Amino acid sequence: MTYRIPSLQDIEKAHKRIKPIVHKTPILTSKNINEISGAELYFKCENFQKVGAFKARGAMNAVLSLSEQELSKGVCTHSSGNHAQALALAARENGSKAFIVMPRNAPEVKKNAVFGYGAEIIECEPTLQARESTVEKVIKEKGATFIHPYNDYRIIAGQATAAKEVYEELDNVSLDYILTPVGGGGLLSGTALATKYISNNTKIIGCEPEGADDAYKSFKTKQLVPSEKPNTIADGLLTSLGDKTFDIIINHVDQILTVSDDEIMEALKLTWERMKIIIEPSSAVCLAVVLKNKSLFINKKIGIIISGGNVDLAKMKF
Amino acid sequence: MTYRIPSLQDIEKAHKRIKPIVHKTPILTSKNINEISGAELYFKCENFQKVGAFKARGAMNAVLSLSEQELSKGVCTHSSGNHAQALALAARENGSKAFIVMPRNAPEVKKNAVFGYGAEIIECEPTLQARESTVEKVIKEKGATFIHPYNDYRIIAGQATAAKEVYEELDNVSLDYILTPVGGGGLLSGTALATKYISNNTKIIGCEPEGADDAYKSFKTKQLVPSEKPNTIADGLLTSLGDKTFDIIINHVDQILTVSDDEIMEALKLTWERMKIIIEPSSAVCLAVVLKNKSLFINKKIGIIISGGNVDLAKMKF
Repeated sequence: MTYRIPSLQDIEKAHKRIKPIVHKTPILTSKNINEISGAELYFKCENFQKVGAFKARGAMNAVLSLSEQELSKGVCTHSSGNHAQALALAARENGSKAFIVMPRNAPEVKKNAVFGYGAEIIECEPTLQARESTVEKVIKEKGATFIHPYNDYRIIAGQATAAKEVYEELDNVSLDYILTPVGGGGLLSGTALATKYISNNTKIIGCEPEGADDAYKSFKTKQLVPSEKPNTIADGLLTSLGDKTFDIIINHVDQILTVSDDEIMEALKLTWERMKIIIEPSSAVCLAVVLKNKSLFINKKIGIIISGGNVDLAKMKF
Repeated sequence: MTYRIPSLQDIEKAHKRIKPIVHKTPILTSKNINEISGAELYFKCENFQKVGAFKARGAMNAVLSLSEQELSKGVCTHSSGNHAQALALAARENGSKAFIVMPRNAPEVKKNAVFGYGAEIIECEPTLQARESTVEKVIKEKGATFIHPYNDYRIIAGQATAAKEVYEELDNVSLDYILTPVGGGGLLSGTALATKYISNNTKIIGCEPEGADDAYKSFKTKQLVPSEKPNTIADGLLTSLGDKTFDIIINHVDQILTVSDDEIMEALKLTWERMKIIIEPSSAVCLAVVLKNKSLFINKKIGIIISGGNVDLAKMKF
């Protein structure tokens, strides 16, 4: 376990570790969307990442940080989202085993995805209490290492590598802003650290759905305020900040901006239609923020991290 | 007007001409889809091309082949699909003017797209006769040059540049097959010529929906058999071969294979979900052919030209 905020060296080490396994995703631009937004946008496409999301970076770094002995006992987490798949993949790629605690009522498609990466699924009642006690049991019985989806410095250092790649590839572009979605804050806090170390003049904005605006409220009140009954189409952003991600965000992020679900879906549709790429609703939040705040971003150079592309097509309504 | 089948030099000239304006689209691979198909697939992503389809190549080459005097009088075509947008763009980029004859009942969204590229739309009754007579009128009145969507050697030479880029980028991969969808046959005949000139050992397969299988029938009977009442989800492939494309296809294509609309939609869904790219149904025909004929393609290296990514999201049902 790493007990301090990742340094530049920690991020570099993470990058070196995960590079042979994760994709260096492309940065795409769209003349069309630049014209519509009045800004110069650079989309870092983590939807093309392994498991379809940036989560592969953090999970891979966390697993690669473990000792041989820890690896031999496996890793565990409770998640039904991208982190579960990412951890399952990371364990498989490194000869370890992943135990994923999932609520009994999690969609079959999500269970199958995790199962497909060779993880063992441990079902529990669909309550937070059951989830946590089941994880405790797995840790005790199997000796597995718990890897939190975001409130973990190894995860944060891994997620930071996406922004690091942005600055390395765009070394001739001086980005005015970098935008990421914010759910639990792993991607945002990692991006904030990478930006502070590598591109200190770039401003960092977290983008959040109105229906799950705990980061916005926490940032404003400078107190960790968890979401109560979050509700948004951006289902990757339902989680609330943890103490570690909150601490980094409060110190290094410049602003949190929110958008409605309608604005998110409009930005998603624009991205699908004009850029011909599949992004998940959570990833459309950043473009929605740009389109909502045109005067702030006019003529600015903006990096946007497209967090993932895992959508249930049957549920998409246009 | 060019009166002979494009030579290698013609294709090279076309490529040189259009290169500064069209995109060199990426070639993507998917470990996941390779595993599912048992083959090694290389997707040439013309869905990322200008106007969202390979049609930009042919239209650009045709317009750039015109004399100053011809350019000054404009170009015209009848189409409500990707060729109309491509020709409109090509005209605008070269200081010319495009007159697009469209049936009165063409969807507003298509009219707007063409209008957005600065073309003049001339409406006519929704019959072939009205379309042709209206085009005749435009040619007479404006002195505009008619650019057919596919049965034109300038168009064919332009479309050939997509396959040329495939062979250049994959010069260390010896492709066993190259697959393209076939509607009017512009892309398939261009691809066949480029393959013959540049990668003579690669076999060429045209992929067609069962509901519009005129190329399949024409190829089999060695006689040009137009589709009667074609009906398929792959709405870019409703057109029938022309005499010029048929002539090239019959001489240089190895096989035409057909698939059902269900098979097309399954391949489309797989591409959207696994590759995170938006492709139109017409583009999914090739992957559908690979999945339907696994024993033919097992362990083979296959180039697939993804023809475009223009879909009406509201109409997509999964």
